[in-house]
Amino acid sequence: MANFYINPNNVVHELPKNNQPKFFMFGVPSYTNLGDQAISLAERKYIEAEFPDYQYIEIVEEDDDAAIPVVKQCITKQDIVAFTGGGNMGNLYLNHERARRKVFSTFTDNLTISFPQSIHFEDNEAGLYEQKLSQEAYQKNPNLVLVARDAQSYHRMQTTFNNKVIFTPDMVLYMKSVNWEFNRNGALFVLRHDSEKVVKKSTIDNIKDILGNERPVKRVDTVLDEPQKITPVTREALFDSELELFSHQEIIITDRWHAMVFSVLTGTPCLLFGNSYGKGKHAYIDWLEHINWVSYTDEEDTERIKQQINAVMEAKTHAYDLIPDFKQLHDLIPHNR
Amino acid sequence: MANFYINPNNVVHELPKNNQPKFFMFGVPSYTNLGDQAISLAERKYIEAEFPDYQYIEIVEEDDDAAIPVVKQCITKQDIVAFTGGGNMGNLYLNHERARRKVFSTFTDNLTISFPQSIHFEDNEAGLYEQKLSQEAYQKNPNLVLVARDAQSYHRMQTTFNNKVIFTPDMVLYMKSVNWEFNRNGALFVLRHDSEKVVKKSTIDNIKDILGNERPVKRVDTVLDEPQKITPVTREALFDSELELFSHQEIIITDRWHAMVFSVLTGTPCLLFGNSYGKGKHAYIDWLEHINWVSYTDEEDTERIKQQINAVMEAKTHAYDLIPDFKQLHDLIPHNR
Repeated sequence: MANFYINPNNVVHELPKNNQPKFFMFGVPSYTNLGDQAISLAERKYIEAEFPDYQYIEIVEEDDDAAIPVVKQCITKQDIVAFTGGGNMGNLYLNHERARRKVFSTFTDNLTISFPQSIHFEDNEAGLYEQKLSQEAYQKNPNLVLVARDAQSYHRMQTTFNNKVIFTPDMVLYMKSVNWEFNRNGALFVLRHDSEKVVKKSTIDNIKDILGNERPVKRVDTVLDEPQKITPVTREALFDSELELFSHQEIIITDRWHAMVFSVLTGTPCLLFGNSYGKGKHAYIDWLEHINWVSYTDEEDTERIKQQINAVMEAKTHAYDLIPDFKQLHDLIPHNR
Repeated sequence: MANFYINPNNVVHELPKNNQPKFFMFGVPSYTNLGDQAISLAERKYIEAEFPDYQYIEIVEEDDDAAIPVVKQCITKQDIVAFTGGGNMGNLYLNHERARRKVFSTFTDNLTISFPQSIHFEDNEAGLYEQKLSQEAYQKNPNLVLVARDAQSYHRMQTTFNNKVIFTPDMVLYMKSVNWEFNRNGALFVLRHDSEKVVKKSTIDNIKDILGNERPVKRVDTVLDEPQKITPVTREALFDSELELFSHQEIIITDRWHAMVFSVLTGTPCLLFGNSYGKGKHAYIDWLEHINWVSYTDEEDTERIKQQINAVMEAKTHAYDLIPDFKQLHDLIPHNR
């Protein structure tokens, strides 16, 4: 029996019976990656703020299979189907890709939106095989629109799929910035443990040597060990805690794209290193290069890294506005009916 | 009396009287920048190949003022107005920007397309003043669509103007690649002389030292001294000559974005340096990073530059496909009526 998250305090097992148009968001994470959790939070905030005529209903990923036939039975022409955004379109995270195929190829009569994603199919036999399966599934849906969150992904989606592709930032950049003015003390290393990791341990050790002489240094990941599960009910408090953690730091060193996004939102100096296929680099260059307190590097030279760290730590925060960059998504969604 | 270029061998002074829908391209360059000339050539090729139901009529920039009232009198609802693409939206090339404002604010009842551009208004009093004038002019036209040719410009256009913005590559990347298999001999430096120049003379001298020991080294610019003027009648032969020149080189060193584009089209190894506001860098990262024989750098370290040059010179050419990246423009233009 599927759970439908109507709002953070209202989980139901049957779909509401009313005439309000519905916005069904599938694939909502229950795993403990705070970046992906922040995306699903931002998606709800976005639709509720910008399109209040829709009733927003979330389905967490483990309920996708059970929910699909229930939604299929009740859905009407005015409803919208969506699949959550992130950095997992492709063959590296097949559980997500398989769920996406199933949702896209099922609701072919409804506007279907793949929320802002980056995409990476490996250029090998396994990658090409999975790409073909995704092509077959996606092309069954003439009403499917893919949203790319960086230009590299925009190019890849357009050359891989026949579907319409639009271009916006990652949804978390829709969230409001905060300015809590805590005393900042310490350097926080936010580093992956997964297969996308490419930054060398020696590089990290060198940076710790630079920074640690003057301040406390801690290491975390945006993927939490505890709790073991996060739901639409619990995610906002964890997101707020993460912003609070960032707001206490003098500097963030990371290879996680969303650690850079949290740094933007909190005005925290941040240096981002690459992952295995450039998703953070491209998103930074496309949307954040004009934001003074964050920067990207592939450097291994300690002196050059030190200069970049000094530059972001000395930068003053300033106003920025990424909301107009969501316009292609905004124009896609019918409203005021 | 204005010239209307119906096709390369047919220049007329009155608009053709027939029922065929018209595609009016304003601002076509007559100056000798081969990059901008290649853009206007590619624009004609694109519309003639993809939308043959339109009669394509070019107006060169010095005729814009005389042509506007003539077109205004004859234009019908089915016709499209466009302004040529390039890297000159903003306050650095005010003659172009003023012409753009005039065209956009005149044909407010027709679909009006600003072909792929990058944009740069300086962050100073003069820049903000000119930006305000452009905002006032552009917003008079509810049917105006701006096309950005890199993600930085996409962000800037969306935060500067209320008009719809779409995202495609530079039009010259629509041109077919050539493989003439000439013997390649020599290094060609293609370098700006204008206000956008930032690459240091010492860097160039160091590269000449690296390359010149083994091969002839020449220097040119894509802005020609002779002829003094290029028209839609003469540009294609000059474009072909330029591709032939590139096809004879072992390596191109440049700070001109279109020298990189010509290198892509001819399979010529190329290293691109930056200009004053990042237009080449962003366009490279957005569209060409996966093309092995071209690369971008901001480096001044000779050893690192040498490594990058070796990498592009050793790269094998491969197939690439940027045509799907023009889909947002293709979808914008009505056809098969």
